[in-house]
Amino acid sequence: MSGRLSVIGLGPGEARWLTPEASAELDAAEAVYGYGPYLDRVPERDGQSRHASDNREEIARAGAALAHAAGGAKVAMVSGGDPGVFAMAAAVIEAIEAGPAEWRGLDLRVVPGITAMLMVAARAGAPLGHDFCAVSLSDNLKPWEAVERRLRLAAQAGFAMAFYNPVSKARPWQLDRAFDLLRAELPGTVPVIFGRAAGRADERIATVPLAAARGDMADMATCILVGTAATRIVARPGRPDLVYTPRRMDAARPERP
Amino acid sequence: MSGRLSVIGLGPGEARWLTPEASAELDAAEAVYGYGPYLDRVPERDGQSRHASDNREEIARAGAALAHAAGGAKVAMVSGGDPGVFAMAAAVIEAIEAGPAEWRGLDLRVVPGITAMLMVAARAGAPLGHDFCAVSLSDNLKPWEAVERRLRLAAQAGFAMAFYNPVSKARPWQLDRAFDLLRAELPGTVPVIFGRAAGRADERIATVPLAAARGDMADMATCILVGTAATRIVARPGRPDLVYTPRRMDAARPERP
Repeated sequence: MSGRLSVIGLGPGEARWLTPEASAELDAAEAVYGYGPYLDRVPERDGQSRHASDNREEIARAGAALAHAAGGAKVAMVSGGDPGVFAMAAAVIEAIEAGPAEWRGLDLRVVPGITAMLMVAARAGAPLGHDFCAVSLSDNLKPWEAVERRLRLAAQAGFAMAFYNPVSKARPWQLDRAFDLLRAELPGTVPVIFGRAAGRADERIATVPLAAARGDMADMATCILVGTAATRIVARPGRPDLVYTPRRMDAARPERP
Repeated sequence: MSGRLSVIGLGPGEARWLTPEASAELDAAEAVYGYGPYLDRVPERDGQSRHASDNREEIARAGAALAHAAGGAKVAMVSGGDPGVFAMAAAVIEAIEAGPAEWRGLDLRVVPGITAMLMVAARAGAPLGHDFCAVSLSDNLKPWEAVERRLRLAAQAGFAMAFYNPVSKARPWQLDRAFDLLRAELPGTVPVIFGRAAGRADERIATVPLAAARGDMADMATCILVGTAATRIVARPGRPDLVYTPRRMDAARPERP
């Protein structure tokens, strides 16, 4: 089978974070599939067809792109950030597993990208400088109780955390509940970083102590980072604070307050 | 203060994963600091000085680069992967916090990169397709007991996992102990991916069930990914298996065996 599907991470936004591999795959593609706002980031090219779809339609989008590639075309599927982090790579492989046998013969390439938490971390300093976890707060695909359980265990483990999909219109109270739960496990001084649209023109990075973190400080375009009890803030005259989690864990210092 | 220090992620290896931002910062630098093997990846340029140091000397390296930048130069510090993930960004900020006040006036830029776990995940399919954590197995900077505790809690939380620094000459038994510990928490069928030198010419990706995972399957250049009880393997005729962790958690399926 000669067709090919490349699942491409576009990174945080601007072209300076798009890898040369991702650029080359986009140049080579005869068709590009993706959620509309991500597709809008890809420059139009003669002879390349474009297929935008809605946010919730991952499996249908994956199936359409696979069927197109199975016809022999070079097809690209674009994701923001990295395609393997709460994005299209898993949906495409799920569709391959459930789909016609010929889809397993396709040349599938996953092209990594800069994921949101690394962009926000870079802007803030090094808040993920030690062990950390990444959790989607969406309960579209898992029960909310599982989210709560994971956050509690992650806090007890002393992980720094990155929250993807922190809020949506259908999930108005979950993020406040998550902060409440963390406040029961961690000191109120733990820094919480709200990174909105990191790497885009309207970027906004704000750090507040966990004690003051509120759900209405985030929207759908926000990636939230939560430090650990050891995370430190370095004040700088005339420049933004630096937030970092030390590499060294002091054996004499308990992980929990 | 006019000096500048850019802490740059070189990504997994080849130039096709080096972002345009990282390339531009390297081009602009008057001096480049880093661990020797990372420095060797940066093409030499007239008028640019190079300062290689050993692996264990992070804080001394950070101090030297900061002092150089404080003299007014444009200085680059290079890391493999992403500088914020078990790499130089935290060490540099630690040195700023402990160093002379003038270092806080420097223009510090953290330039994100493709971190090892995302490269290995892309090669294997989408094993980090759901909630996951990243843990350094090195006990240079934290007690081994803390590593064990974190792995146990991460397994109980149902996180996929990425292990950085899985082995070294000074740590011969720790990785086997980690696998033993995970075998007590997770089904023996959970896929474990050994990604060696991912993104380099000598790349080698191998997947084994947790029941068969052994410490001698890894070396210092390996990033290990551990799936969850829900992680699936899709066999393909004539192509490598795809390993993915489904986006959907079945509420009826317990997280633990």
